[in-house]
Amino acid sequence: MEHSFIAWAKQRAARLPKVKMGIGDDCALIGVESVDTTQSDLVVTTDSLCDGTHFTLSECGAQAAGRKLIAVNLSDLASMAASPVAVFLSLCLPKEHSGDIAAGVFEGVLELATRFGVPVAGGDTNVWNGPLSMNLTALGKVPKGSGWLRSGASPGDAIVVTGRLGGSILRKHLTFEPRLKVAEQLFGLGLVTAATDISDGLGMDLLNLTVASKCGAEVSLDQVPISEDARTYSATTGRTALDHAMGDGEDFELLLAIPQSQLHRLPNEIDGVPLTRIGSFVSRTGLWSRDKSGVRQLPPRGYVHG
Amino acid sequence: MEHSFIAWAKQRAARLPKVKMGIGDDCALIGVESVDTTQSDLVVTTDSLCDGTHFTLSECGAQAAGRKLIAVNLSDLASMAASPVAVFLSLCLPKEHSGDIAAGVFEGVLELATRFGVPVAGGDTNVWNGPLSMNLTALGKVPKGSGWLRSGASPGDAIVVTGRLGGSILRKHLTFEPRLKVAEQLFGLGLVTAATDISDGLGMDLLNLTVASKCGAEVSLDQVPISEDARTYSATTGRTALDHAMGDGEDFELLLAIPQSQLHRLPNEIDGVPLTRIGSFVSRTGLWSRDKSGVRQLPPRGYVHG
Repeated sequence: MEHSFIAWAKQRAARLPKVKMGIGDDCALIGVESVDTTQSDLVVTTDSLCDGTHFTLSECGAQAAGRKLIAVNLSDLASMAASPVAVFLSLCLPKEHSGDIAAGVFEGVLELATRFGVPVAGGDTNVWNGPLSMNLTALGKVPKGSGWLRSGASPGDAIVVTGRLGGSILRKHLTFEPRLKVAEQLFGLGLVTAATDISDGLGMDLLNLTVASKCGAEVSLDQVPISEDARTYSATTGRTALDHAMGDGEDFELLLAIPQSQLHRLPNEIDGVPLTRIGSFVSRTGLWSRDKSGVRQLPPRGYVHG
Repeated sequence: MEHSFIAWAKQRAARLPKVKMGIGDDCALIGVESVDTTQSDLVVTTDSLCDGTHFTLSECGAQAAGRKLIAVNLSDLASMAASPVAVFLSLCLPKEHSGDIAAGVFEGVLELATRFGVPVAGGDTNVWNGPLSMNLTALGKVPKGSGWLRSGASPGDAIVVTGRLGGSILRKHLTFEPRLKVAEQLFGLGLVTAATDISDGLGMDLLNLTVASKCGAEVSLDQVPISEDARTYSATTGRTALDHAMGDGEDFELLLAIPQSQLHRLPNEIDGVPLTRIGSFVSRTGLWSRDKSGVRQLPPRGYVHG
């Protein structure tokens, strides 16, 4: 099926921006129009999603799976403050309905590729005796030396999150918006000292960020923005909505460090997405919670695939 | 397992060349030291390999599978005359022995990454209810505007192949050398007008190249270099060794177009790899064979996965 699929995909992607040589040769060629590395660092991220682990094909369909695939990669670019340059799609397709599944995944990828103006510049399709597994690699660029890393937070910096957290499994893990626009505007303001996206759960990703930054974090639990879906989910799990907001994976919101002295310049929201301060980075390593009863150590909850 | 695997992999890859930010943040950052896009085009290729289709894990083991994974991608870079800049590894691992399999695949990738001095700059690991599927994305660079494409052959150009063809399934599909060194030297000589690598079989890949170049090809069948394994395999299949050389997939040799007027500058071999002229590109589209009995149309044999 590869040849006919490539021809169809090339046609479907024809209205996206172009790279020098996209779908159809052994490799893609990307010229200086797309990324000038004397001005920019090149940013690369790759993520695979598997049927039964990251989505359930029989429930969500191929298009939602494809949309999620590009969205998780664009979220990684956003967490570096990078803007997307091109994406590459590689599929291992189950034998049954392989053509329909490939087309559905591609449509889902195209939805966000079109929205963000990113060329689908190449890829690979295979049919095998296994369930659907998909890989997408995204290339991005960020002004030289300015990409947000996990390692830049200092004690005293505020901990800020975008959006509302928890209960993503009910819906948002398939429908979330990668925070590219928020990242772009925050990058323009020059406020952010460290960043990551919340993929394994706020607790776990905050811990990872503190480890990379060689500091700790103190969270004001009553400030954590809890999503409606976390509350809904809480009613079925018996766990608190806050517990879901702290521990559920796949929020794909941004987790940011912003110097205390710059906080007055932080908008309350960008592009309709709320920005909420939930605590401070501290010199004492580990995760800590602060509420009326005092300061306690927090377990690094989080959902780790596998 | 992801965190401990990442820590181990980072350690194992410590002696490879570095990018600005490799394994361990949301994305990799690649600076201008690695690729200056005002001088170079950036080249990107991605390939997935699946247990049971491209290798049989229970027979070849994880290390051989990992070695093949990076080798097929480096072969794509070679077919563009690109030199590798960085590779990104993404794994969907079966639940049983996931740690051992991940480590084995990584060792196989490292074997060629070390040989060719390519950083393993990032990736993704997942555990799922399916067999092993693996993706590798390779970044490369080639002097601006000089990458070999499939579309550059002209009628009159000689058809040249590296190595000997056929019977790869017996051994070579797991052990082949990506022809980066041959490509580098040929690139330095400035001889090549079009290229691809032989992954679907000589007949099929030659057809693809002629279609991209809007011409045809005439093959002197008695000139096609036949591998020992094609002869061995022929004894068990009842097909001729030539048939295997023309049709078997996964040779991962280079298929090149070289102007007639430059042929005298073509070495007989490079780095121990023979270079053999097997015919000419012609203006009449399609694949043709020439032997003592005259010119006949060739079927585009080839092995297409899926």
